[in-house]
Amino acid sequence: MYDGTVGVLGGLEAMRSLKESGFVPRRSIETLIFTSEEPTRFGIGCIGSRLLGGVIDPAAADQLHDRLAETDPTAPEGLTLRDVRTAAGFTGSLATVKLPADYYHAWVELHIEQGPLLERDGRASQNEEIVLGIVTNIAAPASYRYIIEGFGGHAGALLMPDRSDALCAAAELILAVERHTLAANAASHGVDSVATVGTVAAHPGAVNSVPSRVTLMLDIRDTNVARRDATMNALHADIREIEARRHVAITEDSINADIPARSDQHILDTLEDVCKQEAVPYKKMVSRAYHDSNFMARVAPIAMLFIPCRAGVSHRPDEYATPGSIALGTRILARTLAVLANE
Amino acid sequence: MYDGTVGVLGGLEAMRSLKESGFVPRRSIETLIFTSEEPTRFGIGCIGSRLLGGVIDPAAADQLHDRLAETDPTAPEGLTLRDVRTAAGFTGSLATVKLPADYYHAWVELHIEQGPLLERDGRASQNEEIVLGIVTNIAAPASYRYIIEGFGGHAGALLMPDRSDALCAAAELILAVERHTLAANAASHGVDSVATVGTVAAHPGAVNSVPSRVTLMLDIRDTNVARRDATMNALHADIREIEARRHVAITEDSINADIPARSDQHILDTLEDVCKQEAVPYKKMVSRAYHDSNFMARVAPIAMLFIPCRAGVSHRPDEYATPGSIALGTRILARTLAVLANE
Repeated sequence: MYDGTVGVLGGLEAMRSLKESGFVPRRSIETLIFTSEEPTRFGIGCIGSRLLGGVIDPAAADQLHDRLAETDPTAPEGLTLRDVRTAAGFTGSLATVKLPADYYHAWVELHIEQGPLLERDGRASQNEEIVLGIVTNIAAPASYRYIIEGFGGHAGALLMPDRSDALCAAAELILAVERHTLAANAASHGVDSVATVGTVAAHPGAVNSVPSRVTLMLDIRDTNVARRDATMNALHADIREIEARRHVAITEDSINADIPARSDQHILDTLEDVCKQEAVPYKKMVSRAYHDSNFMARVAPIAMLFIPCRAGVSHRPDEYATPGSIALGTRILARTLAVLANE
Repeated sequence: MYDGTVGVLGGLEAMRSLKESGFVPRRSIETLIFTSEEPTRFGIGCIGSRLLGGVIDPAAADQLHDRLAETDPTAPEGLTLRDVRTAAGFTGSLATVKLPADYYHAWVELHIEQGPLLERDGRASQNEEIVLGIVTNIAAPASYRYIIEGFGGHAGALLMPDRSDALCAAAELILAVERHTLAANAASHGVDSVATVGTVAAHPGAVNSVPSRVTLMLDIRDTNVARRDATMNALHADIREIEARRHVAITEDSINADIPARSDQHILDTLEDVCKQEAVPYKKMVSRAYHDSNFMARVAPIAMLFIPCRAGVSHRPDEYATPGSIALGTRILARTLAVLANE
C-alpha cells in the first residue's frame, strides 16, 4: 500500500500544492505514473520505464511471454505482452514510447525506503525526528531463473544410491547463493551485496515423489557491478560441481541484469539545500531496491527521496509509513520541484 | 495408470478366470477396491484400509481437514472428510467400517514393484524372463509437515546481516534429511532407509521478496522402526541447531507414522509353491512403498505379489508394465487364491 503508491500520491499532491500556492513554474512539471514496476506476469519489472528509457527493445518487449498461466490455471497459455495489451485496448506501437535523451531537465522520485536505516536514525535522533533519505546510487539488480533437472520416482522404492534428487541439488544452490554473497560482503567489509532465492517449485510436488525438477528464481543486487559479476562466477563454479556430483542438469536463464544508476549531483545538492532550509534531517544513502528511476536515468538526470517505513518492512501486508513521514517527504519534494522548475 | 490399477484389474480378472474355469472355492473370494491409497486431499493416504484395519479412529477420520483449498483457489475452505463424503452421498457411520480380527483367512495384493530390482533381475536372467516379487515385509512409512518461520522483506533492502531467510533454513533441513539417511544406510551397510522432501512452498513466493515462511513435507521409510526413529532424532537435533543459528522457528506435524507389516509365512510359502509349479522365477523382497496391505495386516494374514515395471519408474506419466508381466502376475495370483480358498 506504500511501495510506489507514496510516490504517485506524493507527486500528485506536490503538484496540487504548488498550483494552490499560486506558483508558476518556468519549466512545466509532469507526474509520471507507472504500473508494473514490480516483476510482472511478463517476467520482468519496470516495463514502462524500460521503454521510456530505451533500455528494452520495443519489439522484444511486445514478444515477452505472459506467464500468468503458470500460476493461474484458468488463464490462457501462449500469450505475449502484445496480445494482452491489445486485448486491453492499448493498440499503439511501442516503438514511439522511448523519450529523447535529456528530455527532462530533472527527475525526482519519492519512495519509501523499504529498509530500516532511516527509522533507526530517527529513533536515535534527539527528538525522534523524521529523517529523510537522499539517494545517491541505485544498486545494480539482476535476476535469473534456474531449472534443475534430476530423476524422479517413488519416495519409497527409489533407493538413495539411485537418486538424482532435484530438490537436494536446489538446496545446495540456495545455500551457495547465500555463502558467496556473505563472502563478497566479508571481503569488502560492507553490506552492499544482497542475493535472494525468493521462489521455488518442486515437480511433481507430492510428498511421496522424489522431485525430478525444481524451478527457482534468484535476485542479486550490488552497488558494484564487478563484485556482482564475481559472485555470479563463483556461483557458476558451484553449479558445475553440483551438476557433476549429483548427476543433475542445471540451466540458467537471465531475466534481467541491469546496470546501476547514479544520482545527478545538482539534484542531490538541491535536495540537500531544501532539507537544510526546512531544517529537516537527512541521510545520503544507497537504494538497494530497484526503481523506475533506474531506467529514467538513461534519459534524464535523476535523484530519489526516501521516507522511513516501519521496521524497514516492505512487500508484506504490514508495510507502513506514517502520515507525518509522507507529508514531510511530499513537502520536500514540492519545494525541490519548485527550485528545479524555475531554473 | 499401473500403480494400484494393476491390482484392481488383476484381482477382478483372477476371479473371472477362476469362475470361467468352473472352479468352486471352499471359502468365498472377495476383491477389495480402495480409492485414496495415495496421500489425499485429507492429508493422509490409505484411508479405506486404515478404517477397515482399525488403524485410525473413525471419529478422528471424519474430522480430517480437507486441504483441497490449499492448491485449488476455487475450492471451499474449512471442510472435513465428513462434510465432503456427506455431500457425495456417503452418509453412513464410519464406526461400522472396521473389520473383526481374522475376518479373512488370507489377503493377497498384486502390485507393480515401483522399483528397478525385478526388471534388473529379469534382464540378467538367461532368457530375459519375467521375474515376480514375493513381498516379505512392507517398510514402515512416516510423513511429517514442517513449517519454517523466518523474517521476510524486500530482496534489495533487507541486508544480509538482518535476514532470517526461511528458505535458506529449509535448504539446510532438506540436506540434513539426506545426510542422516545416507548415514543410516552406511552404518547398516544397507539401502533400507529412504527419506524424501517431496514438496516445498515459499511464502510470499516472489523473486524480490526474502521468504518469510516455507512449508515442506518429509516422507521417511525404513524396514526397521528403531533405525527410522534414530534418523528422526538426528534430524531433530539439527532442527534445533538451525533454529538457534538462523533465528527461525521450525514446527513439525506428524501426518502419519505407521508400523511395518510382515507377510504371513503360510501365504509366502503358497506363493512360492505356485511359482515353482508354474516355473516362474521369483525374488523374495521388501516393499519400500506403502500399500493398503500394510493396514489390512491388522485384520488378516497378508502377502503381496509384485510385477516388474519399466526402469522402476512410478508416480510419473512414463510409469509402465508390460501386458506379459500383468498377465503373469494375474495368473500366479489366481492360482494362489485357488489354493488358499480351498484350505
